[in-house]
Amino acid sequence: MQSFQLLSEKFALYFEKWHFPEEPATLYQPNEYFLNIGGKRIRPVLCMMGNELFDEMRSDSLHVGAAIELFHNFTLIHDDIMDKAPLRRGMETVHSRFGTNTAILAGDVMLVAAYEELNKISLEYLRPVLTLFNRTAKEVCEGQQYDMDYESRKQVSQAEYLKMIELKTSVAIAASLQAGAIIGGSGERNQHLVYEFGRKLGIAFQVQDDYLDAFGDPDKFGKQVGGDILSNKKTFLLIHAMETCTPSQLNELNALMEGNSENKVDRMLQLYRDCGVDEWALELKNQYLNEAFQHLEDVAVLSRRKEPLKELASFLVSRDH
Amino acid sequence: MQSFQLLSEKFALYFEKWHFPEEPATLYQPNEYFLNIGGKRIRPVLCMMGNELFDEMRSDSLHVGAAIELFHNFTLIHDDIMDKAPLRRGMETVHSRFGTNTAILAGDVMLVAAYEELNKISLEYLRPVLTLFNRTAKEVCEGQQYDMDYESRKQVSQAEYLKMIELKTSVAIAASLQAGAIIGGSGERNQHLVYEFGRKLGIAFQVQDDYLDAFGDPDKFGKQVGGDILSNKKTFLLIHAMETCTPSQLNELNALMEGNSENKVDRMLQLYRDCGVDEWALELKNQYLNEAFQHLEDVAVLSRRKEPLKELASFLVSRDH
Repeated sequence: MQSFQLLSEKFALYFEKWHFPEEPATLYQPNEYFLNIGGKRIRPVLCMMGNELFDEMRSDSLHVGAAIELFHNFTLIHDDIMDKAPLRRGMETVHSRFGTNTAILAGDVMLVAAYEELNKISLEYLRPVLTLFNRTAKEVCEGQQYDMDYESRKQVSQAEYLKMIELKTSVAIAASLQAGAIIGGSGERNQHLVYEFGRKLGIAFQVQDDYLDAFGDPDKFGKQVGGDILSNKKTFLLIHAMETCTPSQLNELNALMEGNSENKVDRMLQLYRDCGVDEWALELKNQYLNEAFQHLEDVAVLSRRKEPLKELASFLVSRDH
Repeated sequence: MQSFQLLSEKFALYFEKWHFPEEPATLYQPNEYFLNIGGKRIRPVLCMMGNELFDEMRSDSLHVGAAIELFHNFTLIHDDIMDKAPLRRGMETVHSRFGTNTAILAGDVMLVAAYEELNKISLEYLRPVLTLFNRTAKEVCEGQQYDMDYESRKQVSQAEYLKMIELKTSVAIAASLQAGAIIGGSGERNQHLVYEFGRKLGIAFQVQDDYLDAFGDPDKFGKQVGGDILSNKKTFLLIHAMETCTPSQLNELNALMEGNSENKVDRMLQLYRDCGVDEWALELKNQYLNEAFQHLEDVAVLSRRKEPLKELASFLVSRDH
C-alpha cells in the first residue's frame, strides 16, 4: 500500500485536467477556476487507500475518487453562496467572482459531472457504489441544512451538533473509504469497519478543528484564531461550556455572546479554560480517535496493509494549524 | 400501447407519494410542497410510451420517469431562483416561500433523489440510461446558462436561440423517449429516431409557446398575453422580426423595446403581423412537427404502436392556450 504522497500524485495525474466542455464558457470556466484553487484531495486518497487495504489499486478508485472530489467541490460552491463567503483558500468564491446565478448552475453541473465519473466504473461495482454515493450525498445536504438551522437557534445540544457534524463532514470521509473497500472487493463486515473508522476519524477531525479555532497557535493557524467565538458559532467547545459551566459563568458567557466587546475572544477563552473545555476537547478528540483506530484494528487484513491509513489518520488529527 | 390518460394515472400511482425522509423537515418539506404543486408529468409519460413502442411496459420506465420528473422539478426550483420568479403555477416558488438558501439545497437534494430512482432499474440498462441522463442533465444546465447569457445581450441569432431551446427544453423530451426505448429493448437506430422525434417535437412546442404568448387567445391562455414582448424576451418571433423587417420597422421595433409605452404590446403585434412573423411561426412549427413525425414514421415497429405517441404529439402542439 502506498503513502499519502504517492497516492496524491497518482490522483493528481488523473484529476488535474480540463473537466468540462469549452462552451458555454460562462458556465464551465467558473468550475475550472474553482477546481484550480486546489485543495488537499484527501477524500480521493482515502478512497484509493480503502481500495489498497484489500487489493491492488484499480482504476475504478480514480473514477470514484474524482466523483467524490467533484461532489465535494459542488458542495463548497453552493455552501459558499449560502454562507455569503467572499473567499475560499484566499481566492474569490465562485459566486463572488461570477455571480450567484452562475454559481448555482456551475455547482449543479459539477454534481452531474460527479455522476459521469461514477458511470465509468466497472458494472459489477456500479450499483453498490451509486447506492452509497447517493445516500451520502443526501446526508451531506441534510448536514448543511442542520448547520443553517442551528445558526438561528439559541441553543443546540451536544447530540444535535454531533449529528450535524457527522452528516456534514464525517459521512463523506467514511463513504470515501467504503467506496474504495467495495472496489477492493471487501466483504460487508470489513466495509462496515472502514466506514466506522472514517466516521469517527471525521468527528475527531472536527473536534480538533473547533479546538484549533480557539486554542491554535495564531502563527501557524493560517486564519484568525477565535473566528468561531466572534461569530458565536455553536461549536463542540461552546456547547460543552454552556452545558457544564456554573450559573454565573453562564451569565458571563451569554453577555459575551450578546455583545461584541474588544476582549471578547480573550475572555471567552479564559472562561473555556475555567470550565476545563480545552482539556475536555482534547480528550474527546482522543476518544473518537481511539474508537476509530479500534475499528481499523478489527478489519480482517494483514496489519501492515493498514499502516498508510494509520499514518494519514494520525497526521490529520495531530496538526496544530 | 396505452393512451396518455391511462399512462398518466399509472405514473401518478407510482409517483404521488412522499419522496423524502421526514427530517430535516426544513429541507424536505419544501420539496414535498413543490412536487405537490403538480404539473402534467409529460416527460414520464413520454418515457413510458417510448418503452411501449417496442415492448410491454416494464417497471423500470416508472423509475426512469420518476427520475426525469424529479430532475425536471430540480431545474424548476433552481431556475425560479435565478429568474427571481415569485410564482409557479399560481403557487409560491420554493425560494419565495422558504428562502433562497433552502431552495438551493432543496434543489440539490432533489437531483440526488433523481439518481436514487435511476439506481432502481435493472443492471442491464443502468449504464446506457445513466449515460443518456447525465449528458442530458448537463445540456439542460447549458441551456439555462445560454438563456441567462442572452438576456444581457443586444442581439441573438435564430441559430443561437434554437440551440438554447434545444438544450433547455428539447433534449429532455428527446431523452425521456429514448430512455423508454432503451428499456423497451430498442436497437440503436430506433433509439436515435425516437430521440430525433422528441427533439423536433420539443422545438415545435417551443415555437408554439412563443407564438401563443403573442397571438394566443387571452381568455384561454391563462397567463398574460404579451408577457414576452413586455420583458423584451428574445423569442423566435422577435428574432425573426429583427432579422427580416425593413430598416424603418427595425427603428420602430428598437424604440418599442427601449420604451415601455402603454400600447407596446399592440404596436409590437402589429409590427409582427406587418412582417408576417405570425404566419412564419406557424409554418416553422409545422415544419418541425412534420420532421418529427417523419422520424417517428421511420421507426421500425408496427404503425399501430405509434398511435398514442402521434396523438400526444398532436395534442401538445395543437393547444391554443
